[in-house]
Amino acid sequence: MARCERLRGAALREVLGRAQGVLFDCDGVLWSGERAVPGGPELVARLARAGKAAVFVSNNSRRARPELAQRFARLGFGGLRPEQLFSSALCAARLLRQRLPAGAPVFVLGGEGLRAELRAAGLSLAGDAGHHPGAATRVRAVLVGYDETFSFAKLSQACAHLQDPECLLVATDRDPWHPLSDGSRTPGTGSLAAAVETASGRQAVVVGKPSPYMFECITEQFNVDPARTLMVGDRLETDILFGHRCGLTTVLTLTGVSRLDEAQAYLAAGQHDLVPHYYVESIADLLEGLED
Amino acid sequence: MARCERLRGAALREVLGRAQGVLFDCDGVLWSGERAVPGGPELVARLARAGKAAVFVSNNSRRARPELAQRFARLGFGGLRPEQLFSSALCAARLLRQRLPAGAPVFVLGGEGLRAELRAAGLSLAGDAGHHPGAATRVRAVLVGYDETFSFAKLSQACAHLQDPECLLVATDRDPWHPLSDGSRTPGTGSLAAAVETASGRQAVVVGKPSPYMFECITEQFNVDPARTLMVGDRLETDILFGHRCGLTTVLTLTGVSRLDEAQAYLAAGQHDLVPHYYVESIADLLEGLED
Repeated sequence: MARCERLRGAALREVLGRAQGVLFDCDGVLWSGERAVPGGPELVARLARAGKAAVFVSNNSRRARPELAQRFARLGFGGLRPEQLFSSALCAARLLRQRLPAGAPVFVLGGEGLRAELRAAGLSLAGDAGHHPGAATRVRAVLVGYDETFSFAKLSQACAHLQDPECLLVATDRDPWHPLSDGSRTPGTGSLAAAVETASGRQAVVVGKPSPYMFECITEQFNVDPARTLMVGDRLETDILFGHRCGLTTVLTLTGVSRLDEAQAYLAAGQHDLVPHYYVESIADLLEGLED
Repeated sequence: MARCERLRGAALREVLGRAQGVLFDCDGVLWSGERAVPGGPELVARLARAGKAAVFVSNNSRRARPELAQRFARLGFGGLRPEQLFSSALCAARLLRQRLPAGAPVFVLGGEGLRAELRAAGLSLAGDAGHHPGAATRVRAVLVGYDETFSFAKLSQACAHLQDPECLLVATDRDPWHPLSDGSRTPGTGSLAAAVETASGRQAVVVGKPSPYMFECITEQFNVDPARTLMVGDRLETDILFGHRCGLTTVLTLTGVSRLDEAQAYLAAGQHDLVPHYYVESIADLLEGLED
């Protein structure tokens, strides 16, 4: 049972020693804004040298994989293959490909990165000029992602499409808000999804953590033994819950959203799915668990 | 116990005979869009002649009282005093006046009608030029109403204000959507409130039905005996629930949102607060219950 123990010393060496791989959340774990967590790049490099797989799992839907790979490199996380990077944008594209007939248009609430990821997966986007001629024109899915140009008019359009009971409603994630570096918050996709769900009377299929769907995307590509895999994240309600749902060993890092006292409160309240097995102050603390 | 019986014949004469007054919802009850429900104006006129009070209770936050009075007159409901008209805009203004220090600015998501109603109540609005000089500049309340210019930027601003734990969050209503005359739907204030609540992690104080707050506003001005008052509305989850919460006799009219089978489903499921005592096809059916 998860008890939110500090991960260090012998326990750390044992946990990392048996791990075949580590899943990392990104924002608040590897970096905050444009600043890498000190020791983070070294940890990722040392995991690779130790023959342990590192996979990155982000609810952020703002970047297509090539841009995301550039961001990793820019912040000092070099030598990664794009295949190691899983965002809710990428996984949403996979889900829509699985569920929609070819050429069926998708109405997207989201930015250019999300749109690019969907196009790269061969999806047709409502409003795209290049939307190929033989394709159906009836919108078959509404995808809600992080959308800084969200408006009442877009909300209305989404609802109009969703009056067709065959039109799917998908959300990249339910993150309610995100911290900014000045201590303020910016609205998250979860707040936009709540508006669309309320106005349409529909419930969204959610791609991002804590939905296990992203783990499906990973296991399709990598051979993962959940019992020998760690999930490292900064948000109890997404990362840690996701880890438990997927049978992973969960580690909370305190460089992001959730605080230690919140984890302890969940422990006291018996909400074990929200309690990490372990916590660290920062992912740099994991370095001492790796053999030199 | 409410059983959703058709209101006609002897029962109708008895129910209307003992009633001292009738509370009417407006959209979907008195009119749909710009079309009055046939017989509606006559009913309202005959209630007045019979010495029964008619009071109008709308979750619509788009119009200040003078505009709302014009709308009644334009659609054929003449001879009413503005004091008979209660909108969620008017009641939100009253709530904010009660709860805020004088001059404390309110950040409003809503249109000009709502803003005018708030100004008429003496409230200071963030963004108003006339916002008087000595007044505090810290926003003390965010009011979410029906806002066709709702945007991500406004959502962000609302959240920034709400990071101050002393800043109130108030919503005019939680109506999820509204029907348009072509059968489509437009998003309601409830969908915008859901976005603000999710992004801010706060819960709104709701003014409109089914909150009994609007009944408080009415009883402050009129002497109402709930046991001898009818609530006539078209929406089970707002009007009928409101009626039950206020101890009124509830009547569903079928010219608006809710259908008879929905009321019957609530009855079968034992959700008695959502089941009207009676239903009519249209408020015109009430005419035969009045003495000539």
